[in-house]
Amino acid sequence: MLLRNVLLLVLCALGAILPGRADDGYRLWLKYDRVAEAGLRQQYQAAARFVASPDNTPVLRAASAELRQGLSGLLGQAVPALGAPGTHTGGIVLRVGTAGNGQLRPEGYRIFPENNNLVISSPTDRGVLYGSFALLRQVQTRQPLAGLRLSSSPRIDRRLLNHWDNPNGTVERGYAGSSIWQWYELPERLDPRYTDSARANASIGINGVVINNVNASARYLTPEYLGKVAAVAGVLRPYGQRVYLSVFWAAPKVLGGLPTADPLDPQVQQWWATACNQIYQQIPDFGGFLVKANSEGEPGPSDYKRSHAEGANMLAKALGQHPGVVMWRAFVYQAGSGDRFKQAYEEFQPLDGKFDSKVLVQVKNGPIDFQAREPFHPLFGAMPKTPLVLEVQLTQEYLGFATHLVYLGPLIKEVLEADTHAQGSGSTVAKVVDGSLDHHALSGMAGVANIGADRNWTGHLVGQANWYAFGRLAWDHTLSPRAIAEEWTRMTLTTQPAALRPLVAMLQQSRSIYVRYTTPLGLHHIMGESIHFGPQPWLAKAGRPDWTAVYYHRADSLGLGFDRTATGSNALALYRPEVQKLWGNPATCPLDYLLWFHHVGWNQRLSTGRTLWNELCTRYYTGADSVQWLQKQWAAARPALDPATYADVAARLQTQQKEALWWRDACVLYFQPFARQPIPAPFAPPARSLAEVKELVRIYQLK
Amino acid sequence: MLLRNVLLLVLCALGAILPGRADDGYRLWLKYDRVAEAGLRQQYQAAARFVASPDNTPVLRAASAELRQGLSGLLGQAVPALGAPGTHTGGIVLRVGTAGNGQLRPEGYRIFPENNNLVISSPTDRGVLYGSFALLRQVQTRQPLAGLRLSSSPRIDRRLLNHWDNPNGTVERGYAGSSIWQWYELPERLDPRYTDSARANASIGINGVVINNVNASARYLTPEYLGKVAAVAGVLRPYGQRVYLSVFWAAPKVLGGLPTADPLDPQVQQWWATACNQIYQQIPDFGGFLVKANSEGEPGPSDYKRSHAEGANMLAKALGQHPGVVMWRAFVYQAGSGDRFKQAYEEFQPLDGKFDSKVLVQVKNGPIDFQAREPFHPLFGAMPKTPLVLEVQLTQEYLGFATHLVYLGPLIKEVLEADTHAQGSGSTVAKVVDGSLDHHALSGMAGVANIGADRNWTGHLVGQANWYAFGRLAWDHTLSPRAIAEEWTRMTLTTQPAALRPLVAMLQQSRSIYVRYTTPLGLHHIMGESIHFGPQPWLAKAGRPDWTAVYYHRADSLGLGFDRTATGSNALALYRPEVQKLWGNPATCPLDYLLWFHHVGWNQRLSTGRTLWNELCTRYYTGADSVQWLQKQWAAARPALDPATYADVAARLQTQQKEALWWRDACVLYFQPFARQPIPAPFAPPARSLAEVKELVRIYQLK
Repeated sequence: MLLRNVLLLVLCALGAILPGRADDGYRLWLKYDRVAEAGLRQQYQAAARFVASPDNTPVLRAASAELRQGLSGLLGQAVPALGAPGTHTGGIVLRVGTAGNGQLRPEGYRIFPENNNLVISSPTDRGVLYGSFALLRQVQTRQPLAGLRLSSSPRIDRRLLNHWDNPNGTVERGYAGSSIWQWYELPERLDPRYTDSARANASIGINGVVINNVNASARYLTPEYLGKVAAVAGVLRPYGQRVYLSVFWAAPKVLGGLPTADPLDPQVQQWWATACNQIYQQIPDFGGFLVKANSEGEPGPSDYKRSHAEGANMLAKALGQHPGVVMWRAFVYQAGSGDRFKQAYEEFQPLDGKFDSKVLVQVKNGPIDFQAREPFHPLFGAMPKTPLVLEVQLTQEYLGFATHLVYLGPLIKEVLEADTHAQGSGSTVAKVVDGSLDHHALSGMAGVANIGADRNWTGHLVGQANWYAFGRLAWDHTLSPRAIAEEWTRMTLTTQPAALRPLVAMLQQSRSIYVRYTTPLGLHHIMGESIHFGPQPWLAKAGRPDWTAVYYHRADSLGLGFDRTATGSNALALYRPEVQKLWGNPATCPLDYLLWFHHVGWNQRLSTGRTLWNELCTRYYTGADSVQWLQKQWAAARPALDPATYADVAARLQTQQKEALWWRDACVLYFQPFARQPIPAPFAPPARSLAEVKELVRIYQLK
Repeated sequence: MLLRNVLLLVLCALGAILPGRADDGYRLWLKYDRVAEAGLRQQYQAAARFVASPDNTPVLRAASAELRQGLSGLLGQAVPALGAPGTHTGGIVLRVGTAGNGQLRPEGYRIFPENNNLVISSPTDRGVLYGSFALLRQVQTRQPLAGLRLSSSPRIDRRLLNHWDNPNGTVERGYAGSSIWQWYELPERLDPRYTDSARANASIGINGVVINNVNASARYLTPEYLGKVAAVAGVLRPYGQRVYLSVFWAAPKVLGGLPTADPLDPQVQQWWATACNQIYQQIPDFGGFLVKANSEGEPGPSDYKRSHAEGANMLAKALGQHPGVVMWRAFVYQAGSGDRFKQAYEEFQPLDGKFDSKVLVQVKNGPIDFQAREPFHPLFGAMPKTPLVLEVQLTQEYLGFATHLVYLGPLIKEVLEADTHAQGSGSTVAKVVDGSLDHHALSGMAGVANIGADRNWTGHLVGQANWYAFGRLAWDHTLSPRAIAEEWTRMTLTTQPAALRPLVAMLQQSRSIYVRYTTPLGLHHIMGESIHFGPQPWLAKAGRPDWTAVYYHRADSLGLGFDRTATGSNALALYRPEVQKLWGNPATCPLDYLLWFHHVGWNQRLSTGRTLWNELCTRYYTGADSVQWLQKQWAAARPALDPATYADVAARLQTQQKEALWWRDACVLYFQPFARQPIPAPFAPPARSLAEVKELVRIYQLK
């Protein structure tokens, strides 16, 4: 032990003089590089001389190992493990128990000084794990440790990453390489990434992982695959994460050989009950099921004229006494049945009160599909008897893949803060989701994962910030996206103030910039067909009308936008009167949502003083120009950044700029013949023709 | 410079005392870890005090940089760069020129002592690059440097890696993660992997890369994508590699808007000529085209009743004066036109002499499709007027994906040494391919790449050995697979003799073990439908008869095997009489090929003294048991291995063992009802039923 500590000390000392290796991003925000400021480092050293932990559960062992690994790196000193502090002082003490923790939820933690030590205390070992990461975060972000007092509990219970990973290793809508799950190697080989993803998740409070795509394969329910899933569960368990599965509704047919998958069929019910028992034999803490049914071609209870509630409740009953839950997705829309905006509401709202107590309904943040900006989904606030899981998308399906820098903290926060007015002003989506508005015991929030086997996990480095922000907001939705961005930047990139300023500014502005050059003023769903890359506002024919672009933007000689007021589809009527009032009048509707709800004349003057056409052009042009501003912020931070990291993001910003101009030119050139007006001064008309831009789009549709 | 050298020295010294990090395999065989043996290291140090290079071309700069990087790591001393040696001695001198190099091909090199320096000399800078890697290999494998004299020239001109990588980042038949080519990031961002893949290729003499799948997308010929391809070409060029493209035959239609892709249509010809000019404007050293036409659904000249020669020649003419070539694949087979074995021959052999001088015909090693063992393709030796490219598959489509340890050196060598008897005994496939038999100016060998974005490039570590062996054999087909295996093992794993012995033994035996437990005695094409994973000898219905298993094994109550003699399909008649004589008689036909050519009675006694049924069972059982032998060899080498590397392969061997038993049980249980005999002693019948094994196979076919 002594020799090991000496070696560690030598290593840490060397850390200071060795030239840094290129940072490949693999370590995410858990870098643990030595604190460069000597004075600060000494303060930390004095407060973290050891970690005392009973180490009597796998989770506590993971917590104390992480603390020692992190602190020894950060402080440049060996941090030995003790069973109990005894008379030692100046160290960290891990403690599981209820004493003094009456205000905490089970996963909450407190950090406080006691006998010249810092105690991390929680009713559960998982809470201690979260507290340990919180303490590390203090050091990583250069906050003081001495006398530290922190108390925190998660506001939402199930904080889940949803992987859209397929059994063949591809990731639906993934832009960071192949899946991290290596199904052909499991259960014998456990890729080190499983552990590192679990560490990252634990550090931000994520406590569950749906490991397979909602367009699900039946094979996960076979004994062969359950063994593989159990092996993954074993890696994730010490990090406080449960495994969940997306299920294929027709599994009783393709696996069980039954003639039906009707949820009211006793044989089907028995098949699922047996499947659940088999799962729990192998995975005693299995989290439950996520279901995409009767949506985009997936089978479901409607195939047998049963409701979503009948389907979900059958699964809930099959789970029986097992602790799992059913998360039933509300992402449904039938072809040709009117405004797609309204369909999930129309199908699910009447089912409120009909779901089993183990069922949560999982609702996307907006009514269409993860657009760069959407009004909040009208189901929030409309199903008070049903716990609703908020589903947000971290992978940038509609937000520029891995070549656009888009920090999603503001997007997620915007949804959480949206006021449903369900029980009067202040009935935010956050309060619906965390269960406080309607007093639900269950609550959940899901982020569609943006991680893959790319070395840096997310392709674009800032994708890491989106993973990070999701976890932090799911834990505590009152946090500000700006504070989260700064936390992440400090932990991931630099703590130098001169660099922090431009970096946090660029993160904060990035999403609104993206909206401006792609879908300003409430435009939506005008991206490339199927692939969802690049602009394609001219798309008029597709497998279904609501897969085209013209269905959504409705450009004509009079104006632009989808009339969802009473003179149109009347989707606005799904919202509370207060919301209707705000959004229903084009004069008061925030410009960000204008074309979501109104068909606005080209020459209509907006609150900015410009006509619609001029405002539209202004946003496309200034949006695209703002990518240069992003580049300037990145360049300003360069002295503080790892060179490889700098070069990587700088190159992606170049691509982003090129693609922003592509969006701008495509959209203004396409809409111009409807508006029949020139590009307003001072903007120069695009140098290329619409045909040229269209050809550029077509390339990405080629076989 | 001085400070840098001091730092390097410090770093190297530290290398010895720092505890090793887990080896993640990324560095491949170019590890450059310090030589542990002090005496040997001192000898190397005395011979490599500097690298003198004019550094007047990018290739020379790459060569001298690699030498300095490699030697400074291996020798633990700074290795400075000099422009010319001057009066310095004890160093490495790079020299481009013809003096003394009359016996060398352009890419050949000589290494020899001169004035107490070691000179690496070649007519070209590329030859110096190859010589530099050869010198590094000397040190990596612990051969002496003092007085070193080496001379080597490649026997085959175009040594190409064929990537089957799709524009969306997937890899057809890839088992090592997503594509290393990041098309959405190009040309702005150049992933560091491009450089590292080029270094690895250069180190084994690979001089060209077909970067996209033969099932090709048209988009690579668009200006947008040519810019991306040019950026890749720019990274590969200093490492002596040219970029080639697979082309989509219908590109003139989908890109050019022409009504036809008929190769005799003047507009089509003009379109391709223009495309070639555009390519060469951006990539002056573009290597040429690879074409899969009228095969497995791809369009081609037959759509217009033109021959493959007419198609290939049109492309050759379009290339005009540009230096590129056309590699036209002979992998064609029409549904329902008799024995698939014969079809490529029947379609291509009559075209011999009709191809343009810029055309090579690319032929897979065997007549079916990259089975674990195939007789050599009958086209070898049958098209003397046409240069033939030998195509082998490194990615283990039919060889256990990334969970089976299979070293392919023996497979590739077996093909190269196969005797076509085209011009009498000794007319090996190697001599056909290297052009020496028929005096061709062009020659080529292609390996279907097994690399992806997995951290260790190939998924299974031993996949690296297959990449390595391909390059070495394409450079010099007279090398022995055993020597190559030892080279690779020394460079990649360990130089400790006690570990080398079991490691090289396991590599050498691995492919024959795989054959024994999957397709012994000449069985072929009995693997899982479409996915090609696991056994499926019962497959009797598929999109085409020649996609089933029963088409190939022909099991019935009488016996097993495909009669390809005159009493059957007579495919044997495609070979020279000497070959026919050897293989046509079941008594003399090597057992490895027996069921390729004969329908053999279950009770027929073989040269081993056993009946067919008993021999079949013996091979399945001893083959599966041999995986335990592989595990023992790996375990024996453990003390010499990096722990992470050890654990990774050990886990994969566990999976392999499980899957070997799966193959064994599936095959003996399926064939047993035909043979109507018990499993012979001393082997115990499988503990599971055929139905259970089938279910295991079915899982991998589930959506």
